[in-house]
Amino acid sequence: MTWLEVDEDSGFGIENLPYGVFRRDGTDARVGVAIGDRVLDLAGLAGAGLVEGRGWFASGTLNGFMAAGRAAWTANRARLRDLLTDPAQRAAVSPHLVPVTDVELLRPFEVADYVDFYASEHHATNAGRIFRPQGEPLLPNWKHLPVGYHGRAGTVYASGTPIVRPCGQRKVGPSDAAPSFGPTLRLDIEAEVGFVAGTPSTPGRPVTPRAFRDHVFGFVLVNDWSARDIQAWEGQPLGPFLGKSFATSVSPWVVPVAALEAARVTPPAQDPVPLPYLRADEPWGLDLRLEILINGGSVSRPRFERMYWTAPQQLAHATVNGASLRTGDLFASGTVSGPTKEERGCLLELTWNGTEPLELPDGAKRAFLEDGDTVTIRATAPGANGTTIDLGEVTGTIRPANC
Amino acid sequence: MTWLEVDEDSGFGIENLPYGVFRRDGTDARVGVAIGDRVLDLAGLAGAGLVEGRGWFASGTLNGFMAAGRAAWTANRARLRDLLTDPAQRAAVSPHLVPVTDVELLRPFEVADYVDFYASEHHATNAGRIFRPQGEPLLPNWKHLPVGYHGRAGTVYASGTPIVRPCGQRKVGPSDAAPSFGPTLRLDIEAEVGFVAGTPSTPGRPVTPRAFRDHVFGFVLVNDWSARDIQAWEGQPLGPFLGKSFATSVSPWVVPVAALEAARVTPPAQDPVPLPYLRADEPWGLDLRLEILINGGSVSRPRFERMYWTAPQQLAHATVNGASLRTGDLFASGTVSGPTKEERGCLLELTWNGTEPLELPDGAKRAFLEDGDTVTIRATAPGANGTTIDLGEVTGTIRPANC
Repeated sequence: MTWLEVDEDSGFGIENLPYGVFRRDGTDARVGVAIGDRVLDLAGLAGAGLVEGRGWFASGTLNGFMAAGRAAWTANRARLRDLLTDPAQRAAVSPHLVPVTDVELLRPFEVADYVDFYASEHHATNAGRIFRPQGEPLLPNWKHLPVGYHGRAGTVYASGTPIVRPCGQRKVGPSDAAPSFGPTLRLDIEAEVGFVAGTPSTPGRPVTPRAFRDHVFGFVLVNDWSARDIQAWEGQPLGPFLGKSFATSVSPWVVPVAALEAARVTPPAQDPVPLPYLRADEPWGLDLRLEILINGGSVSRPRFERMYWTAPQQLAHATVNGASLRTGDLFASGTVSGPTKEERGCLLELTWNGTEPLELPDGAKRAFLEDGDTVTIRATAPGANGTTIDLGEVTGTIRPANC
Repeated sequence: MTWLEVDEDSGFGIENLPYGVFRRDGTDARVGVAIGDRVLDLAGLAGAGLVEGRGWFASGTLNGFMAAGRAAWTANRARLRDLLTDPAQRAAVSPHLVPVTDVELLRPFEVADYVDFYASEHHATNAGRIFRPQGEPLLPNWKHLPVGYHGRAGTVYASGTPIVRPCGQRKVGPSDAAPSFGPTLRLDIEAEVGFVAGTPSTPGRPVTPRAFRDHVFGFVLVNDWSARDIQAWEGQPLGPFLGKSFATSVSPWVVPVAALEAARVTPPAQDPVPLPYLRADEPWGLDLRLEILINGGSVSRPRFERMYWTAPQQLAHATVNGASLRTGDLFASGTVSGPTKEERGCLLELTWNGTEPLELPDGAKRAFLEDGDTVTIRATAPGANGTTIDLGEVTGTIRPANC
């Protein structure tokens, strides 16, 4: 397809073309697109007059391009496909290809607001069983609306940023009379998929499921690091706060919505039928196949297609009260978990709150994360024309606490 | 004190000097300071070489000046006092004074992250009695930490912005089997006081109570508009989301921390004694006297000095896990309520969840807000040298729902 020597099975072929922000030593951060094992420097292409949008691409963030709207996204993607498939363009384009091993990949966009959902029925059920063993695992509202909350936008970090074990109030023993202060003893991950808004919306004007593609630029992988002991102690009645706000990591490549059209599948049946504002007229399940690795060993393979609430439903819900979107608003799915143990997306579930330690492929055992552990979440999806779309990976290594 | 004819009882005398952002027709938004019934145009002053910081003040937001840090804030405040008290400066400064009636006051800063606390023991106790009548009104964590959560930064609006009644899922009758969709039937206010961060902090480095003044630029009034029926249905287990995210209003004048030194008082005794990271070595209660008016009639007079958790404690808590501050981070106190009915800061409490309608001064009755109602929250505090500090007001009028 393209004149580059790209292994179409690499996941970064012509049907993917995800956007990111990169830096080579001595140069400013700029926007690039992944193709094979290269990064195509869009600021360089724009400077040479080969694509429009030098202002967008020479900035150190995707926000300008994301704000330009769907027509600009479509035009740029089409132009890049032309440039990369027309052999006559090879001489002009080649100088703007950089080996990905030569660059630093940065956080791809500035986060405006960050919302985190709770959209996996399997995760919500497991969490309910663990935290409320006496009650019904799913609360009464769960099948009527995509439960979510706002997280901290200012601590959303690039993949690879070290994660310092947070300190805070927690009860070490469940029967302790009072909390103590210290490092979290239950540091966890949550493997999630996020989408990011490009086109803002007008206050008071909900974004319907049908308008999803007009507002959403693309998808990333998210690790919503969680301190379970801090979270359990602080979380009533207003929800998660310090147990989550220390760090959230996002993958470097934003996969355009258009690249995932071939991954759309029918989501799980919803019973009861949701209220009209949550109904979509096309299927928006996404066949994204995640994998979680701890210290390089695979520990779980969650499948995103099992999520009960879809991304367009989440966006419709979050705006139905008139709340508006800004460019850079990040919406994460909540932990992606499936019906079997091999598909659970966090250690809380994988180790049943630490009571059933997980044996890692190297033989070590983990109830929760230890200092020095490296966690990587990666994913692929079916792409157009029988190709594979690689969503890249989000990774982080645990550093010791400072308290 | 000053060469202007300022009534020192006006609340906007030389001991206040709050910062805001204003616009006159035909000109760009710029930073100003309130003095008497005038706005001192700092961009104009800087253009004339009378103060430093033209770049900060000619922008349409306080964020640049807030990011400049405490030394810059102190120097600017001292310089403004000199200019306004030295009669020799009258001719030079007077051209930069604009009648406040000639300007539009805008939202004073761009909000980075927005955190909302729950720091009044009286409010938390009343809310607990209303929502969980069977249980203890205060949950076990409440006296150990300032409970809080993240709100939506993108829907924090200037005072005066109309508030459209939000739509969403709610149960109209408490015994309804399923929710229905429609306008909130329980639209409420929350009278709060917020503080805004100027100087960012380093990830991983908590901001101690002692460092509060190094990071916090000033205080504003906040109305955390709330849809109680939407909030009640959605709120478990992850806390408030659409019941709050449609709108939050802030007052136009940011009162510098330095202007409130004379308002510091001993806060309520804390039992149990908080963990060391929450202990301050000076008293940080603040004697701010709030008043809530509905359609011009006074309905409540909450006193901020009654808040159990102080602003420096809130900031220390929010950062103790390593979460960093950005310029523009807004922290609101939660509803300010006192021990008597006359000091309750929201209709939920004032009408006991609608069961005891409130009679307004004009004879009308309210369980919750009706379309067309205007709510204003205002406050004053003691200032230096026996003066009064006026915090201004935050106001909004309810527009009918669009659904």
